[in-house]
Amino acid sequence: MGLLHNQFGIRHVISSAQFGREALACVFEGADDIAEKFAQGRRHEYAHALDGAVVASYFFEPSTRTRWSFESGTHRMGGSVITTENAEKFSSAVKGERLEDSVRVIGHYADAIVMRHKRTGAAELAANYAKVPVINAGDGTGEHPTQAMLDLYTIKKLRGTIDGVNIAIVGDLRLGRTVRSLAKGLCNYKKVTVHFVAPDILQVSPDVVDYLALRRVKFQKHSNINEVLADMDCIYMTRTQRERMTAEEDTATKNADTEYGIGTHNLHLMRPDQILMHPLPRNNEIEFSPLTDGRAKSVYLDDQIKAGLHVRAFLLKDLLN
Amino acid sequence: MGLLHNQFGIRHVISSAQFGREALACVFEGADDIAEKFAQGRRHEYAHALDGAVVASYFFEPSTRTRWSFESGTHRMGGSVITTENAEKFSSAVKGERLEDSVRVIGHYADAIVMRHKRTGAAELAANYAKVPVINAGDGTGEHPTQAMLDLYTIKKLRGTIDGVNIAIVGDLRLGRTVRSLAKGLCNYKKVTVHFVAPDILQVSPDVVDYLALRRVKFQKHSNINEVLADMDCIYMTRTQRERMTAEEDTATKNADTEYGIGTHNLHLMRPDQILMHPLPRNNEIEFSPLTDGRAKSVYLDDQIKAGLHVRAFLLKDLLN
Amino acid sequence: MGLLHNQFGIRHVISSAQFGREALACVFEGADDIAEKFAQGRRHEYAHALDGAVVASYFFEPSTRTRWSFESGTHRMGGSVITTENAEKFSSAVKGERLEDSVRVIGHYADAIVMRHKRTGAAELAANYAKVPVINAGDGTGEHPTQAMLDLYTIKKLRGTIDGVNIAIVGDLRLGRTVRSLAKGLCNYKKVTVHFVAPDILQVSPDVVDYLALRRVKFQKHSNINEVLADMDCIYMTRTQRERMTAEEDTATKNADTEYGIGTHNLHLMRPDQILMHPLPRNNEIEFSPLTDGRAKSVYLDDQIKAGLHVRAFLLKDLLN
Repeated sequence: MGLLHNQFGIRHVISSAQFGREALACVFEGADDIAEKFAQGRRHEYAHALDGAVVASYFFEPSTRTRWSFESGTHRMGGSVITTENAEKFSSAVKGERLEDSVRVIGHYADAIVMRHKRTGAAELAANYAKVPVINAGDGTGEHPTQAMLDLYTIKKLRGTIDGVNIAIVGDLRLGRTVRSLAKGLCNYKKVTVHFVAPDILQVSPDVVDYLALRRVKFQKHSNINEVLADMDCIYMTRTQRERMTAEEDTATKNADTEYGIGTHNLHLMRPDQILMHPLPRNNEIEFSPLTDGRAKSVYLDDQIKAGLHVRAFLLKDLLN
Repeated sequence: MGLLHNQFGIRHVISSAQFGREALACVFEGADDIAEKFAQGRRHEYAHALDGAVVASYFFEPSTRTRWSFESGTHRMGGSVITTENAEKFSSAVKGERLEDSVRVIGHYADAIVMRHKRTGAAELAANYAKVPVINAGDGTGEHPTQAMLDLYTIKKLRGTIDGVNIAIVGDLRLGRTVRSLAKGLCNYKKVTVHFVAPDILQVSPDVVDYLALRRVKFQKHSNINEVLADMDCIYMTRTQRERMTAEEDTATKNADTEYGIGTHNLHLMRPDQILMHPLPRNNEIEFSPLTDGRAKSVYLDDQIKAGLHVRAFLLKDLLN
Repeated sequence: MGLLHNQFGIRHVISSAQFGREALACVFEGADDIAEKFAQGRRHEYAHALDGAVVASYFFEPSTRTRWSFESGTHRMGGSVITTENAEKFSSAVKGERLEDSVRVIGHYADAIVMRHKRTGAAELAANYAKVPVINAGDGTGEHPTQAMLDLYTIKKLRGTIDGVNIAIVGDLRLGRTVRSLAKGLCNYKKVTVHFVAPDILQVSPDVVDYLALRRVKFQKHSNINEVLADMDCIYMTRTQRERMTAEEDTATKNADTEYGIGTHNLHLMRPDQILMHPLPRNNEIEFSPLTDGRAKSVYLDDQIKAGLHVRAFLLKDLLN
């Protein structure tokens, strides 16, 4: 058993709500050590951390990036991977099999199950039936806790602390599991202010609002990014999920890119010390062309990605030990 | 060359008919040793058994469970895997390539080919052209020999012997390659009685009947599971493959779940020493909810799965040595 | 940094044009050593060449053969693989993500990216953004440089030298990236004559013709294979890509198999020392049935495949060191 289990009783990673300030500090410290060794050409020190272990990538929704992040972490720690890109189409799910049976079985093949599913709550259900750790890699409109961890870890690395952060979370907030997990994670820190920037129709869901209110975390809603851009420490952009929208929503977000996006039209409002984040994939909400003019720290293609690799490698190592 | 080749002349695993009583005993013994080491935390003793070996998972029909069973076994023995979930759509098969060319080529990339194919006889064809061992992981309505081995191995582990077993094979028997392979395998043992339980329209195919008759294995056909349930040592349930049925077949099996299924309505007929098996995926033929009330030994989510892992790991190790 | 980078400044493998005679000699020598060790049962000498390395198979077009060739090479050198069979359908590409973002991100997960893409120029674009080596495994109608390398390497192994070779390149030449890459590669050798055999409508594209002309490589066009068959050292057959043809092209190639194919009707024109090659998949342009009657050396199912494995294993090892 690893630190997360011994100190915090964590066996599965299902929701951000499981991870308090101390548990997150433990994850960040573990990720720091991996990051340091990797950066110093000392990969071999972790090359046997998962010797003999098999990790199952059980993805019912394709997501090459998240899948590969976990798989690369597994390989770099010396473990092996069994993988499916699209269990929805390629597994017995099409023959009517229940998830309960599948995860119970997979627990005999693998020492951990990393699961992405279309149904909210699927990861929790899986954790109830699997005899090995389950890591939620996104469940419907539910949660994506490892994304939140890597986001928080990125902020901590770049700012030194998450306490006191002024953060704008921008875009399609209504259905975003990433947004839900990140907002919950932010509640662990002091003097945080969250600015939700979105058209009304895509604003953050009531359960997130309630979660923050209950914990007395300050938040505000805005309908135009330029209202807050200059004052933020972090700007967390998300993709407009146009393919999921109704006609009404599509119309209401016609100018989304200019009202909620970052580009040449409002880049002058930014400062070099601001952190510009994105869970990817990015469409037009951050104008394409790397923001290399020193106006802000764009971390979505590098720092966040490395943070994800190191956080997930640590989680696997710790949960499997 | 391993034991199967040296003692029994087996280079490929294509049909249950290749494996006589002695060859099966050899497989069970090999699987036993792997099971024992794994259960005792001595995985490392097998961790280099397939060092440097590459196994190809060549699946023309998706089957995450069977594929992962072989792949997990490979990884746990120290081997590597190259894999395709759906060669039907993702390989040169769509460009009209012949299987003969493909397997000859793959034999240069891999040290063994595990193949699932829609066409009956495909595995045998592949074995004729490949220069490396081919393992049939299901060919059309033909055979699924490693499933039969794990089924027999499970019975042996739980009963001590397969001789004298009274077994009901229930459900959609007509097209089932699993049923064909299992029935053939059972013919190696003494005083076995096989009860085929299915509506007439889905009863076991004539070639299986002939195979048993020729070997003087006792069998009976039944149309309702309750006729035999109380007297069986093993009940082997299979899925109603409703997606393959004609309208006539669909009508004839309307009450399949109550006439051929296990559930609260007939669970009282069962005894704690009876073994309830299923090759999975399970639909409604075994009522959902683990049968944990001590009425029977439900082994389809655990014992059979582990047996599969150990049998397949042994086969790969032995054929590749 | 490996030999290719130090001696020839090669960091990515995008086009045949990057590889001059000396660079190709370096690749062949490296592949020779791998081939020798593998043939002598000394695989273990290379079993740690890629220790700790992760290679990404990033395939937007399915191609099990090419993908597995790279992946098997990676495994045999001790590396690990993260893979996608069909990024077109299973990745964020469907959500509108740009390749630039994807490859930048993947460069943090993997130490090299092997990419197959439908768009000509995609590999070069990727190389501009990735921070790790990119190997072009086919980009639209552009290039397939590692195929050309294995083709040239096969000729060298069988003939001793590529200088002076009389080669017929036959079939659907118009769109073939394989043909483009091979033709460019042949320009590095002395006294080569290339015979392009195809119906007018499928003849080799002007850019290839110009490339050869500029380098004063002799070439001729023919419309029937039997015009040249007896005089060739090598016959390089390619598949008629009927699924991509217009109605006009389809009509013009109705008799393609007899006019441009090899079969019992013209096999008597061949000699035992001639090399019969094909990049696969093969349809009817080489009559099905292995040409084992000693009429020619058919190398497309064995020698070329092994050459591909060894060339790619060398490239990965060299670029990643």
